[in-house]
Amino acid sequence: MTAAADTTAAAEPYEAPAGLAGVSVARTQVSDVLGRKGFYHYRGYNAVDIARRGRVEDAWHLLLRGDLPNAQERAEFARQTAAVRQLPDGVAELLPSIARLSKPGSLESLRTALSVTAQAMGCKAWTDQSDEENREQAMKLAAVVPTLAAQLFRLATGQEPVQPRADLGYSANYLYMIEGVEPDDRRRYAVERYLMLTIDHGFNNSTFTSRVIASSGADLGAVVTGAIGALSGPFHGGAPARVFDMLDAIGAPENAEPWLRHAIEHGDKLMGFGHRIYKTIDPRSELLHEVARELHSDRVEFSELVEKTAVELLAELKPGRELYANVEFYAGVVLEAAGLPREMFSATFACSRVIGWMANVLEQIQDNRIFRPLARYDGPEAPRAFPASWQPGQP
Amino acid sequence: MTAAADTTAAAEPYEAPAGLAGVSVARTQVSDVLGRKGFYHYRGYNAVDIARRGRVEDAWHLLLRGDLPNAQERAEFARQTAAVRQLPDGVAELLPSIARLSKPGSLESLRTALSVTAQAMGCKAWTDQSDEENREQAMKLAAVVPTLAAQLFRLATGQEPVQPRADLGYSANYLYMIEGVEPDDRRRYAVERYLMLTIDHGFNNSTFTSRVIASSGADLGAVVTGAIGALSGPFHGGAPARVFDMLDAIGAPENAEPWLRHAIEHGDKLMGFGHRIYKTIDPRSELLHEVARELHSDRVEFSELVEKTAVELLAELKPGRELYANVEFYAGVVLEAAGLPREMFSATFACSRVIGWMANVLEQIQDNRIFRPLARYDGPEAPRAFPASWQPGQP
Repeated sequence: MTAAADTTAAAEPYEAPAGLAGVSVARTQVSDVLGRKGFYHYRGYNAVDIARRGRVEDAWHLLLRGDLPNAQERAEFARQTAAVRQLPDGVAELLPSIARLSKPGSLESLRTALSVTAQAMGCKAWTDQSDEENREQAMKLAAVVPTLAAQLFRLATGQEPVQPRADLGYSANYLYMIEGVEPDDRRRYAVERYLMLTIDHGFNNSTFTSRVIASSGADLGAVVTGAIGALSGPFHGGAPARVFDMLDAIGAPENAEPWLRHAIEHGDKLMGFGHRIYKTIDPRSELLHEVARELHSDRVEFSELVEKTAVELLAELKPGRELYANVEFYAGVVLEAAGLPREMFSATFACSRVIGWMANVLEQIQDNRIFRPLARYDGPEAPRAFPASWQPGQP
Repeated sequence: MTAAADTTAAAEPYEAPAGLAGVSVARTQVSDVLGRKGFYHYRGYNAVDIARRGRVEDAWHLLLRGDLPNAQERAEFARQTAAVRQLPDGVAELLPSIARLSKPGSLESLRTALSVTAQAMGCKAWTDQSDEENREQAMKLAAVVPTLAAQLFRLATGQEPVQPRADLGYSANYLYMIEGVEPDDRRRYAVERYLMLTIDHGFNNSTFTSRVIASSGADLGAVVTGAIGALSGPFHGGAPARVFDMLDAIGAPENAEPWLRHAIEHGDKLMGFGHRIYKTIDPRSELLHEVARELHSDRVEFSELVEKTAVELLAELKPGRELYANVEFYAGVVLEAAGLPREMFSATFACSRVIGWMANVLEQIQDNRIFRPLARYDGPEAPRAFPASWQPGQP
């Protein structure tokens, strides 16, 4: 009778701003974003510093187990997470058909593949599993997303899938499964920075989606499936690739100033600039910019020129708006310079973000209340009389 | 630069109650629930009266097209919706493998199957489709859910799938696809009342999920996939079948009083009683009770006894809580008496509710703002110093 115990719904509703902007919907210990300070953290630790110093397994351990690992915990966690990268029985034979239905790297294929993988893993409503089972499953689901993403990509591009290797670290294994060869460490390093920086970031749309779905008691597979769907929206996870479409459209350094000026003056969106929360430089962007520079390439220099020009023009044409490059701007630059196929940018984002989704959901279910808000009806006054033209006949 | 234009996030956050209880998150003209009055409506029209007088196509037309149809519109809409019940190419061959991985009637299978169907339909981000394409796709997605649900059920129970028939109405076709024979009109009538009563009901968890996902710009397939996941949670769509588990556990009329008294005194949940919003009799339950009586059966009489006993005991043991039978109590009774397999109750709920999801999403995208709330961080004060035990080595 949990639902019945509620009496708050009877009080005068609070009218939230559109998109729940500025509304705090839960308490959390997973992460926080301090937009005015240009700072975000994972469980209190500076997330950019973790990304500078550690590997995916460190951040994953922190989010899933509650703290940064010591040497023994680190080795053990790396072993555990590597051991569950394999797909469960019943999935591999479906991947070619799933991959064929959408473009290479699409989150639509990943969504379907993750959904069927959760079925094959036997995910049940979290209310019907023990805390230990839920934690274990949260780890497994996050571990198979890179495998699915890589294998779907290879299948969609006419290549044989590559099985995960348990002897490689998370990031090296990910690139290995995409390319079929072990990556050099420079590229592994670059991609790993991106992954670590994007694991979690407050109650973004897909993380919120994962909490809303989990709050119904649904299995963690339903949660990840829904969150991948949310991430696929162009207002959310779709942007890194779209930054590139803009860079392509600009084409050459001498076009940057006129192209950007024209776009800003005509009210077009500049992909990769501005953030709902950061009103200063996005701290993720700064480290990614550094990583991009280390990779050297004409593309990096061109991107820097575009960034510099855009920031100057935005300050001139949109004074007071504090628009800076966001994570997506240099994310794309880094991933491309590291040799990751452009079609895989969104799926790579899903690989890291699923770790954050799972940490959020494990927290949500410790003190759960189903998300069931209100809406303000503003249609014709009810009850309306049926129109005379409606003559349905036999019911 | 939509995201960047936001400044509301900088103001002091509003701390919403858990689960967003009592928080109005959007305006809507789709439906409303007036809990204290025991009344709900679709676009201003009494939903129970529509369910009494019409068919699924009437309510669907109302939600999708904006008003109840005249005779010509009704015939045309019935034709259009019947014409898109067939699965797109590339799906049928995957259904046996998907069905095999979960129990018959499971929403997990339906979630995967709908996701792959959306891929096969070529659903793109709604931002990349015209309004007309989005409306058409919303109709198609709702039209294929019954086909998928019925075919998955037949496959999971070792039967050949039955193809939809365009010459049957929505409800008759649904039962035909499950059973392989046309249903008699008495049973069709009963199931149709259930379907019409459950199409929409305010911002319940799955409807809210569908709006949250759609707000990212994701394709409508991602929306429905995520919403099916939300519906699968036992706090949401899973309950009609669980009412039966309770009736089974009670077993016989003479056990009702002692069994229910024991459960209530021990703080157990009574499935099918109480509602977060209704503090009076659930209006859906009343019509379903009538329909159940018309179907006659020992089961119906037993259910009535359990309802009566439970309401009396709840009034005695939980005074002031106003706990009555909710929609789920008589929903299960009706569907079972109409011959629908119990495993199909949740999937049948998905068939009707997807119509509501789509109406909500078409409204959401007309005036969209991405759902991106805040959370209140209450973990260790940030920034924390890294623990000395964390020695990650080479990054």
